[in-house]
Amino acid sequence: MSLYTHTFTVALHDTDAAGVLFFGHLLRHAHDAYEAMMADRGVSLARILAEGEVHLPIVHCEADYGAPIRHGDVVEIEVEPRRVGDTSFTLLYQFRVDGRPAASALTVHVSIDPARNSKSPLPNDVKLIFINAD
Amino acid sequence: MSLYTHTFTVALHDTDAAGVLFFGHLLRHAHDAYEAMMADRGVSLARILAEGEVHLPIVHCEADYGAPIRHGDVVEIEVEPRRVGDTSFTLLYQFRVDGRPAASALTVHVSIDPARNSKSPLPNDVKLIFINAD
Amino acid sequence: MSLYTHTFTVALHDTDAAGVLFFGHLLRHAHDAYEAMMADRGVSLARILAEGEVHLPIVHCEADYGAPIRHGDVVEIEVEPRRVGDTSFTLLYQFRVDGRPAASALTVHVSIDPARNSKSPLPNDVKLIFINAD
Amino acid sequence: MSLYTHTFTVALHDTDAAGVLFFGHLLRHAHDAYEAMMADRGVSLARILAEGEVHLPIVHCEADYGAPIRHGDVVEIEVEPRRVGDTSFTLLYQFRVDGRPAASALTVHVSIDPARNSKSPLPNDVKLIFINAD
Repeated sequence: MSLYTHTFTVALHDTDAAGVLFFGHLLRHAHDAYEAMMADRGVSLARILAEGEVHLPIVHCEADYGAPIRHGDVVEIEVEPRRVGDTSFTLLYQFRVDGRPAASALTVHVSIDPARNSKSPLPNDVKLIFINAD
Repeated sequence: MSLYTHTFTVALHDTDAAGVLFFGHLLRHAHDAYEAMMADRGVSLARILAEGEVHLPIVHCEADYGAPIRHGDVVEIEVEPRRVGDTSFTLLYQFRVDGRPAASALTVHVSIDPARNSKSPLPNDVKLIFINAD
Repeated sequence: MSLYTHTFTVALHDTDAAGVLFFGHLLRHAHDAYEAMMADRGVSLARILAEGEVHLPIVHCEADYGAPIRHGDVVEIEVEPRRVGDTSFTLLYQFRVDGRPAASALTVHVSIDPARNSKSPLPNDVKLIFINAD
Repeated sequence: MSLYTHTFTVALHDTDAAGVLFFGHLLRHAHDAYEAMMADRGVSLARILAEGEVHLPIVHCEADYGAPIRHGDVVEIEVEPRRVGDTSFTLLYQFRVDGRPAASALTVHVSIDPARNSKSPLPNDVKLIFINAD
């Protein structure tokens, strides 16, 4: 179940001297897709961070690289929910170039109460995104 | 005379612990605007680089920072040509948040023949972008 | 078995508006540690890429985040080999701040013959790094 | 008058598909040199930011690019003070590869009282760095 499709064009600064997307930048683009998906569902990550009542740090990430992604490629990132719990959620990102799978990434987020430095329930507006996705 | 308006939303990774856009990332976004403007006019910087007959390296850049640019801000970059010559061109980038000027940047590009490592005339399709802008 | 310890200080641009190292930048620092380890063992990744006879792209990466890593923190990255084969190798990176574990990362590299776009044996000087590590 | 020499090796992620340091990353390295210089003189930019009594944002920057800077190059950045005033200072960065000038950059910093959002005197420990430099 896709929550959102985020599209970007690979910029010169995304690439390295090997002529392809530097592997670490894939995670940056995954996070852009996550922020865009949240905004599309009416949730501002900037507002959540500024209010400071809850943090949603990433505690784990993974990425798999298939086809090379090159300068000028138009990349579509499909954002899908995985394993949504009371205090955490996992997102999967499918990267496609010209409709063909090129890479995937995964981020695991936990909900933290920064004042207590302990796990806290996911904010309702965030949880609703994933409930509605089912 | 504006060639193009490029829009982006300030991502978490654009900001730093001071809570605002890290100054160096402004130049990255200026370059994204430059690439998007070129693509909009039918010129692919990726193709120019891949063909390798001409390089358009930046030999000078500047930026001025006015209002802070924050996480989640929607930023418009107006790209304008300045001082277009036979072997070089200068672009000015006006950054606005909510319609108000927030920063500006400037890049000076020269046209180089990589085989001879010497200046070479601007490619016609690049020059036409600026001629049509007058 | 540690191959190398790479040390860096968390710069302002490494952090984000949440006040901590942006998760994606951890992979960039892991790659810096990989390049520094190779150079320390007499192998230049820049030379390998420039010669073009073999590429060592990353096909998988992972990272786990424990304690927050903050602006100004001095971070030590211990680079350890994992699962070294004929055409691939895996590296583990242990991140410590003030001697305490803060994060870990893992990269899987395959050896590719770019002319044939097929797997090729690891270059001898690269393989020797890992054999000597046993 | 040099305040500090900062050295770094150009990493793969510093380069782009044109095979050289992406121009915007030069400013990132200049800022690293600024932070390292401050730390060398006993001033922690991280502490200044965390205390929040004064901010030292960059209001202007410039860079000039001469020789290409490539993957694996060992770069020395000489940090020199320029135009130090009561509420601002300017730093010049000379980039050298193998002892030869390759690029230069310049940053102008102002001292701001974030509570009042107005200019404030430079912190004494910061000002002393530049007074001692004369």
